[in-house]
Amino acid sequence: MADPASGELRPAIERMPVSRIRDVANEAMGMEGLIPLWFGEPDVATPDFICQAAADALSQGETFYSPNRGVPDLRHALARYTSELYQVPVADDRITITASGMSGIMLSHQLLIEPGTNVICATPAWPNVQGTVDVLGGEFRPAPLKFTGSGWQLELETVFDAVDDNTRAVFINSPGNPTGWVMPGDDQKALLAFCRERGLWLLADEVYARLVYDRSHAPSFLEHAGPEDRVIVINSFSKPWAMTGWRLGWLVTPARLGQRLEMVNEFNLAGAATFTQIAGITALRDGEDFIARQLERYRSARSAVYERLSANPRIRIGWPEGAFYAYFAVDGIDDGLAFCKRLVREHRVGLVPGSAFNAAEEGWLRLCFASQLDTLNTALDRLEDAIAS
Amino acid sequence: MADPASGELRPAIERMPVSRIRDVANEAMGMEGLIPLWFGEPDVATPDFICQAAADALSQGETFYSPNRGVPDLRHALARYTSELYQVPVADDRITITASGMSGIMLSHQLLIEPGTNVICATPAWPNVQGTVDVLGGEFRPAPLKFTGSGWQLELETVFDAVDDNTRAVFINSPGNPTGWVMPGDDQKALLAFCRERGLWLLADEVYARLVYDRSHAPSFLEHAGPEDRVIVINSFSKPWAMTGWRLGWLVTPARLGQRLEMVNEFNLAGAATFTQIAGITALRDGEDFIARQLERYRSARSAVYERLSANPRIRIGWPEGAFYAYFAVDGIDDGLAFCKRLVREHRVGLVPGSAFNAAEEGWLRLCFASQLDTLNTALDRLEDAIAS
Repeated sequence: MADPASGELRPAIERMPVSRIRDVANEAMGMEGLIPLWFGEPDVATPDFICQAAADALSQGETFYSPNRGVPDLRHALARYTSELYQVPVADDRITITASGMSGIMLSHQLLIEPGTNVICATPAWPNVQGTVDVLGGEFRPAPLKFTGSGWQLELETVFDAVDDNTRAVFINSPGNPTGWVMPGDDQKALLAFCRERGLWLLADEVYARLVYDRSHAPSFLEHAGPEDRVIVINSFSKPWAMTGWRLGWLVTPARLGQRLEMVNEFNLAGAATFTQIAGITALRDGEDFIARQLERYRSARSAVYERLSANPRIRIGWPEGAFYAYFAVDGIDDGLAFCKRLVREHRVGLVPGSAFNAAEEGWLRLCFASQLDTLNTALDRLEDAIAS
Repeated sequence: MADPASGELRPAIERMPVSRIRDVANEAMGMEGLIPLWFGEPDVATPDFICQAAADALSQGETFYSPNRGVPDLRHALARYTSELYQVPVADDRITITASGMSGIMLSHQLLIEPGTNVICATPAWPNVQGTVDVLGGEFRPAPLKFTGSGWQLELETVFDAVDDNTRAVFINSPGNPTGWVMPGDDQKALLAFCRERGLWLLADEVYARLVYDRSHAPSFLEHAGPEDRVIVINSFSKPWAMTGWRLGWLVTPARLGQRLEMVNEFNLAGAATFTQIAGITALRDGEDFIARQLERYRSARSAVYERLSANPRIRIGWPEGAFYAYFAVDGIDDGLAFCKRLVREHRVGLVPGSAFNAAEEGWLRLCFASQLDTLNTALDRLEDAIAS
């Protein structure tokens, strides 16, 4: 796409590639009857009790600036939540509230990345990880996961080989978007040992930590790291509590980063909204039933979508251990972007091509199954028509 | 202050100076009876009708992701608001919603600033402007305002002389924090002409545009610039609508920047909260009476504070034409930071030293007069005691 601003902004900004998700979504402008399974978002609104907590905080005048690292009661609640979930002690001074997981990624990279440095990232990965590195003028180095036939695997050598003297961090998103890959605890330990040895930071995007189906939570780097290790865990209220539109997340870091995080949080946007943070306390306290109900729905959706897709001899798909995406390749499709555009235009289903996620191979597609079963089945009918045509 | 993280983060991050506002505020930990006039924040909560609009949006399920440049109805409302206020046509595609004026400053600088470039900024200025430049590894070049005895003045030559081949932008905050300076329209025209000639961007932080006392609004660069001029106006709901804790702002830019702003907004935090944006529409529609009432209060406070301070022969102060700060120097105080700490500790009043704002001269102090008259008078009694002691 031609950029009319050419030449007047930073070169790093001018050469950033346009989002392929948006490129596909543009095909759908004004279209009726489209089934959009492209965004990573629960299909239900935030539960009433959380909305009510925000409304109550608003009516109580909680509309002033919050401290730069966040409302102390929320930081305390998150420290407790984290300690209980992982059975490791996490102190309040290790928690920083951010205005979304996205902001948490940007802040973490701002601490570490500048021109001349690089970050290694397991891919395919959410494109916004690379986006933040691009904005900061650093180098994004993919460490591709391997498709084993039944699922995804990160060979640690792939990461180790990508590291050089300018590497500042390794970025791992597990459970992973788009693959649903869950990094085994033993691999986490080995990667942490490597990062310790090399003085690298480990940036762990664990926003899908609760969206796993065969255990209470995904393995976390917090289960292996000490409080002073160079580990930053990025998390968010968006997915488990269906709060995507709220912009509320948090970081768990060594306490010694607190002062610098206070500063970069202030210089980016001075934190999440005060009443939103207060609603977050209620979400943590009363949200477990909601999470359990959503997981039950996603579990059924996962099985239904997986069964239909894996039954198609032209489709390769891994069993998604976590998150809420089916990620699959269709034999014969070698331009995923073109296929997704046609799928929207002719079959009214919205998916995202794997190329949006820095996939090593063409032809992969992501479908978000956080939706109703009948909607998903209609979408799969249409997808099968598109593949057959 | 020693930084225990030393050596492991980016040098640019490690050398960022700790906030002097915070440095002073730390003196007040757990103190009772303190009168805090240090933050730039209205003393009243957000009016009920705006809170109710957010609560209604929440109960209507407005909790999903918003488009990256913001909710279209709010962008439209802001385009109309801007067009009517300045009597110049501003199209919807020139508006980008940001999660605060702060975020608007960071996004603007991300488009332009990288190592090896600089931005010229009229000073004294809000320290967070320099903060964003520091985070991005650019150079912040002060262009000091001159105190004329009765008020502040920017000699344009000061700006012109600071520009070199690596300058990308000139940053002007008018009405200005902390000085209350309002840049005359003719000076804006002359500066715009200079920026056009040199191919520089003009970044205009106009968050205090409505906080002026002798006219309907402060002169805006939008009154002189064409829609394609290299001008970015940064604005916010925080001050006029008493919405500091909400994190809601907007940018007015040439329409051609839309696609890049969509991307950097996404990579920083993917916008302001959806229900917050919807409440912003109500604030614009129904907020004028509230703004008028607040201005009436601030006008009285400004007179009262100015009269008392200017009556003191040891004090120099400019008449604040805009914003809600008294900015003044006390003869005999040559370390503003030490004085502010003593003022907190011994007299329980919170002010900010001018050195926090990159002031050219020591001994200046900022007092926010967005407060009740009796509170302000008590604070001034205590201040006079401190000055006399």
